[in-house]
Amino acid sequence: MHVADALAKLTYRLEEIHELEAISGLLVWDQRTMMPPAGTRIRGRHTGLLRRLAHEKLIDPEVGRLLEELRPVEESLDPDSDEAALIRLARREHEKAVRVPPELTAEMARAASEAAPAWLEAKATSSFARFLPALERTIELRRRYVECFEPREEPYDVLLDDFEPEMRTAEVRRIFDEIKPELVALVAACREREVDDSFLTGNYPIDRQETLAKEVVELFGHRPDAWRIDPTEHPFASAAGIDDIRITTHYSPSSIDSLFATIHEYGHGLYEHQLPERIAHLPIGEAASHGVHESQSRLWENLVGRSLPFWRFFYPRLRERFPEQLGQVELERFVAAINVVRPSLIRIHADEVTYGMHVILRFELEQDIVNGRIELRDLPEAWSQKMWEYLGVEVPDDAHGVLQDVHWSAGHFGYFPTYLLGTVMSVQIWEAARRDLRDLDEQIERGEFGPLREWLGEHVHAHGRKFTPQETLRRATGSTIDARPYLAYLRRKFGAPIPA
Amino acid sequence: MHVADALAKLTYRLEEIHELEAISGLLVWDQRTMMPPAGTRIRGRHTGLLRRLAHEKLIDPEVGRLLEELRPVEESLDPDSDEAALIRLARREHEKAVRVPPELTAEMARAASEAAPAWLEAKATSSFARFLPALERTIELRRRYVECFEPREEPYDVLLDDFEPEMRTAEVRRIFDEIKPELVALVAACREREVDDSFLTGNYPIDRQETLAKEVVELFGHRPDAWRIDPTEHPFASAAGIDDIRITTHYSPSSIDSLFATIHEYGHGLYEHQLPERIAHLPIGEAASHGVHESQSRLWENLVGRSLPFWRFFYPRLRERFPEQLGQVELERFVAAINVVRPSLIRIHADEVTYGMHVILRFELEQDIVNGRIELRDLPEAWSQKMWEYLGVEVPDDAHGVLQDVHWSAGHFGYFPTYLLGTVMSVQIWEAARRDLRDLDEQIERGEFGPLREWLGEHVHAHGRKFTPQETLRRATGSTIDARPYLAYLRRKFGAPIPA
Repeated sequence: MHVADALAKLTYRLEEIHELEAISGLLVWDQRTMMPPAGTRIRGRHTGLLRRLAHEKLIDPEVGRLLEELRPVEESLDPDSDEAALIRLARREHEKAVRVPPELTAEMARAASEAAPAWLEAKATSSFARFLPALERTIELRRRYVECFEPREEPYDVLLDDFEPEMRTAEVRRIFDEIKPELVALVAACREREVDDSFLTGNYPIDRQETLAKEVVELFGHRPDAWRIDPTEHPFASAAGIDDIRITTHYSPSSIDSLFATIHEYGHGLYEHQLPERIAHLPIGEAASHGVHESQSRLWENLVGRSLPFWRFFYPRLRERFPEQLGQVELERFVAAINVVRPSLIRIHADEVTYGMHVILRFELEQDIVNGRIELRDLPEAWSQKMWEYLGVEVPDDAHGVLQDVHWSAGHFGYFPTYLLGTVMSVQIWEAARRDLRDLDEQIERGEFGPLREWLGEHVHAHGRKFTPQETLRRATGSTIDARPYLAYLRRKFGAPIPA
Repeated sequence: MHVADALAKLTYRLEEIHELEAISGLLVWDQRTMMPPAGTRIRGRHTGLLRRLAHEKLIDPEVGRLLEELRPVEESLDPDSDEAALIRLARREHEKAVRVPPELTAEMARAASEAAPAWLEAKATSSFARFLPALERTIELRRRYVECFEPREEPYDVLLDDFEPEMRTAEVRRIFDEIKPELVALVAACREREVDDSFLTGNYPIDRQETLAKEVVELFGHRPDAWRIDPTEHPFASAAGIDDIRITTHYSPSSIDSLFATIHEYGHGLYEHQLPERIAHLPIGEAASHGVHESQSRLWENLVGRSLPFWRFFYPRLRERFPEQLGQVELERFVAAINVVRPSLIRIHADEVTYGMHVILRFELEQDIVNGRIELRDLPEAWSQKMWEYLGVEVPDDAHGVLQDVHWSAGHFGYFPTYLLGTVMSVQIWEAARRDLRDLDEQIERGEFGPLREWLGEHVHAHGRKFTPQETLRRATGSTIDARPYLAYLRRKFGAPIPA
């Protein structure tokens, strides 16, 4: 009775924390899609308040006391049960949070909000020097953050843990070291190849792209009463609840790139939509990690959205919408074009092969920064060197180099690796789905996505955040992270003379 | 030093309360404009959480302690100062809130959320009997709510106070008793009059109405980076902050009614936009009351938006947008048509003259309910009788009678009178602006709204919620509420044979 009471009290508090964060997420969505621009200042106060309240509730000594009270019971519970998972997660989050003094938390939030305009201005004027003071401050605070914790194998472990819980830097390094030479070789091989993708740029009216976005999301499967799609500068996905999914995409009048952004965000949205309703009001009902989230978006974007079977089904529809642009382009040429490998400057526009190198470059620089092996002022130079070495690309200025991503301004060191970890996991998950579903390619060729959606729901989404990301992956695929399926997939798809 | 500390602590807490309520308001806006419908359930939890947190912060014994500590200082402060106003308001709100047991607050919230679908269903099927159990429950809870407070002159005083602070029922009755016979006589006089307003219904394409809504708001004056307008079933105004104003309007393809809804909501929006920035993060920086808010919307809708000077300026523009519909209609005919007095069933569609009678009817019935002078099951009958008596209108069914408004389902007894109080005040404020600005009519005829906007900002909006509504009105106009200017205005405008 006593224990049931403690568990009920803990659950109640975790529910509040989860909901405050969900509301905060909605405020961010609103800010990026709907808010009149002058609302920025007050919006910062509002999201700040919600996060502070959630943080205060998490570090409340009463949570520690309840967790103490529940310690004996935790061992007697089935570790797979919701209750055990909830206590486990609460303990983990509480113990992490209480290590960080509230003043440091506040200072980090303030530094991030001050770094944001500094980064924007630096990027607009392509001047890393303007961003440098804000970056120095951010990194100094991150160092102090790392020092709040017991020493790990490497300081970067602490940072990584915030985005990919319980993943170690050494493990990431092992995986990336395995990937790197293969990607470099593949990039070199693809470079020789001539692929005509000129028809992908041209006159692609936005209203027709909007119709297309709705059509593809409907085809994959969604409940129209529970989703919405809006245009933004940078596509993202957000969920105020499992039945309130909001994805965005970016429409350009001169390309159909929006389609791949929509498909990518659909993957994120589907994960949030299929989280288990039973625990959707609790932190264990959230997504497992940034990496696992990315595995879902990359799976839909690449394994489905850039595959021949999908386009066998969907290309006639696309061509019907854009007859002037694609009427003369046959299926194989189109699929080759959307899979062209072409080293370029900007990560978010990179193809499947070069994408990994963009991430590895950032991971390596973050290592150097955190371990003090590089002076911050030398970052642009180091960036350019690596871009040349890995992709043979010359960086013309800071805006197209070291300043391109928002992450560092927000203090998000340890975030980048999850993009590639997610991509690696996406292929493992895809292969597992394929084994179970047997004729997945044929289903997709017939435009049937229900079985894939349900398989992902049952094997990935249903776990929420009950387990570590790696345990979630193991339950879905039978294995923890493994680069081999990903590399085999890339070799199969891009090693052949004509990709398809 | 000690006192400064107590004041800072109190301020901090009030700031949190204000911001939680602002966030809650944004969630309501989102729900009515953007949210996928399936998000309703979780949204209810989110707004419920924010309101509970705000309430918990308000009733926190520490607030009581701080107020005790500040009691001696309060008397030494200039009563017009922000500090004195803040302490005064905090004391008032805290003392009211602590009188209500949390269980009753929770029960009222639950009853309201259960009554909402019951009311919708009852209205859809036009069956008051279906709504009756929910209404009985709501009223029982309101009685218990009233009992939480020291006895006032009348129990209804307690309810009224939540919408129009420190206004007494006897005062409302006195004003309404003064208004009622005049309105009844005016309605009877107008009934004789034949006015052709057939051209106001017809083909009014929505896209042109949307352009018009933007045009009129721009003409009145707004910062486009701080406002937005969206379509909703029921128009409303909302503000997440003084620079984040969101109004909505309802477009029908067969009338230009949306224009008046837009102008009405502009008045609400302008109030929120011109609240003093200095205290905008605090409860004293909110609007003074429901009544004062309504005075602003009614001022713009009626005193500006249905006036001859305004249309002298704006009619050519309107006619240009709708040449097929209005090309043959001269200015005077148009202005007569938008001012037609025609008794009808639905309050929100009522003209300036009959509107007051709709409110008085509701106020009288609420009195009868609260004082136990009527059986709830007899409400539809009582409603019909009064409609016939006051407006000569026959009520065909409950949906067009007693079930038309949402307020009772939400437990909002005491809200209705503020609509008419606001309307009365709007004329007092208008006359004061006119005295100060001298050539207000001519300004409006020239399309100049800056002086009026600034006058309202300085004399009404600048006070925020520092004073009682009546004190706010007195500072703006030199007088507390007075029905005479309103009645004189109605007689001037509608007593003449052709209204203009």
